[in-house]
Amino acid sequence: MAYLAADLTIPPLDADARAAAADRQSQLTKPPGSLGRLETMAADIAAMQSTAEPTVDPAVVVTMAADHGVAAEGVSAYPQSITAAMVRNFQDGGAAVNALCDADGIENVVVDMGVAGETPDDIVDHAIADGTANIAERPAMTRTQAHEAIAAGRSVVTDHTAARIVGLGEMGIGNTTPSAAITALLTDRSVDEVTGHGTGIDEETRARKADVIERAIETTDPDPTDPVDVLRSVGGFEIGGLVGVALEAASRRMPVVVDGVIAGAAALLAAEIDPRVADYLLGSHASAEPGHEAQLDALGLDPCFDYGMRLGEGTGAAVAIGVYRAACAVHTEMSTFAEAGLNVE
Amino acid sequence: MAYLAADLTIPPLDADARAAAADRQSQLTKPPGSLGRLETMAADIAAMQSTAEPTVDPAVVVTMAADHGVAAEGVSAYPQSITAAMVRNFQDGGAAVNALCDADGIENVVVDMGVAGETPDDIVDHAIADGTANIAERPAMTRTQAHEAIAAGRSVVTDHTAARIVGLGEMGIGNTTPSAAITALLTDRSVDEVTGHGTGIDEETRARKADVIERAIETTDPDPTDPVDVLRSVGGFEIGGLVGVALEAASRRMPVVVDGVIAGAAALLAAEIDPRVADYLLGSHASAEPGHEAQLDALGLDPCFDYGMRLGEGTGAAVAIGVYRAACAVHTEMSTFAEAGLNVE
Repeated sequence: MAYLAADLTIPPLDADARAAAADRQSQLTKPPGSLGRLETMAADIAAMQSTAEPTVDPAVVVTMAADHGVAAEGVSAYPQSITAAMVRNFQDGGAAVNALCDADGIENVVVDMGVAGETPDDIVDHAIADGTANIAERPAMTRTQAHEAIAAGRSVVTDHTAARIVGLGEMGIGNTTPSAAITALLTDRSVDEVTGHGTGIDEETRARKADVIERAIETTDPDPTDPVDVLRSVGGFEIGGLVGVALEAASRRMPVVVDGVIAGAAALLAAEIDPRVADYLLGSHASAEPGHEAQLDALGLDPCFDYGMRLGEGTGAAVAIGVYRAACAVHTEMSTFAEAGLNVE
Repeated sequence: MAYLAADLTIPPLDADARAAAADRQSQLTKPPGSLGRLETMAADIAAMQSTAEPTVDPAVVVTMAADHGVAAEGVSAYPQSITAAMVRNFQDGGAAVNALCDADGIENVVVDMGVAGETPDDIVDHAIADGTANIAERPAMTRTQAHEAIAAGRSVVTDHTAARIVGLGEMGIGNTTPSAAITALLTDRSVDEVTGHGTGIDEETRARKADVIERAIETTDPDPTDPVDVLRSVGGFEIGGLVGVALEAASRRMPVVVDGVIAGAAALLAAEIDPRVADYLLGSHASAEPGHEAQLDALGLDPCFDYGMRLGEGTGAAVAIGVYRAACAVHTEMSTFAEAGLNVE
């Protein structure tokens, strides 16, 4: 990973900013600790952003789309053509992530990382190929493509340097399959434990999906200590892109809000490339997909809520950014006892 | 309760609107059920509002303030004067509920229901007395005052009929004490089980607080089957006001977002006065106070999140309204498969 890290420096969390945030919390007009986790959320973001005034605004959710050759194995409830169709839906503003970003005042950036079908001209185009190879038969991509995907993700962040927080989102028919493979390789869980029903497959299909993942790992034989090799072998272009988003955002002190299992797989890879990235990750929802809990465990992340969501796109991240905004708002907008002229002695 | 209900009709939930909402959810551009609880939140609000297009806007959080004679028993970590001081802080925009309402686009209405100290001239003034009597010695209020408090709460809602959702908030030093008494009387839990540390008292003080509550129930001897008698005996003016808010809001098909244990005690009383009000209640946070879980159980409410909050003011309700807004936004703003020209057959 040496050359990946050569131009990437992820700073340590700012302990002074965290202490200043905790000190401010103790002076706000409320009983100490009475806002519970909202207080620690604000302090965490303060330490990441190196400021006593943490904020989520402007907020961006990056939704990266790509196709997966493994879809040919029938691992999804939907045909591959849905990926391109949903990208058009994103651009038309009709998808769940659009509605949630609009409701929460978040910019949504949609990126073509390698969609097989045609995508709109106005999309951010970092397409690496027309989808990955079928990992049940051969590696998903070349090592060069893996590096290209990560570099593309980094460039999306450098194109949005005003953002103070970034959410990880994705779209790609079949992409819970590479995510489960990555999760099994990078955590202590078995393939079967981390393989779920994705967009809604039945139990028979889920069992076949687990077999496909076992076969993919056997065939491509990735080195689990080399995250770029894992990405090359069983990954996806959008997953590689999100790895780059997480790395670059962390280097710029932007908190990174993880979404469901695909974003979680990218976060696992990013933390394997540079463990310091884990300091900048924030939880969003607890996904209905079984691999998510393994990912959150490995990354030490607490979800903000558990609504049984399993859509991806960055939908969980978008809702969570609303909660983090609330946490930052109480932290920065409330009066202190002194400001309010309140004497509680 | 006959004459309380004489001019109050709480309509049944609209099953057709719920069915239409579920039907719409099945046509939106996402796998069926993939937004989990966000989908049921939208359907619940659709049934309450009797519309296929549920919304939380405009949203109001009503923060009712009053003092409590029982504060003289040393049941709180703060002196009674803090109630009036915090009301001034609300009016100056410096409290947690102000910051959260501002962040979430919610109007905050502060009501003096019976604060002992001086409150600002621009506050909504429904003050019934300079605080309740000390319930350890005598009933909190007269039966007439209990009815006045409920009527005042109802009038606050009739002054805000444009609101589509209302959150219950409160401020009153000592008010977890009457709330615990009400909760013990109206659920199957013991006083000790539902008596917590409030704003931050130690275990010794908490045990004394439980003794005070036992003594209050013994001395005032309320009839637990008569909610107005419970309110009169061990209640508070802000609690009575919130009972009225819940009743009137439900009668107008406004969803009512319950906050912590004081709002929860008011919700229990309202549901005892008219069980149909329970159809219009929505959960917000899971409070750190032990009585809250007993209340949510009795009312059949699921919290949206558990952040260990224990501040009141309507802070949990304000954060939850942001989540309900997200649920309504995906429901109403997303495209259907037909609208997006997406064919998944």
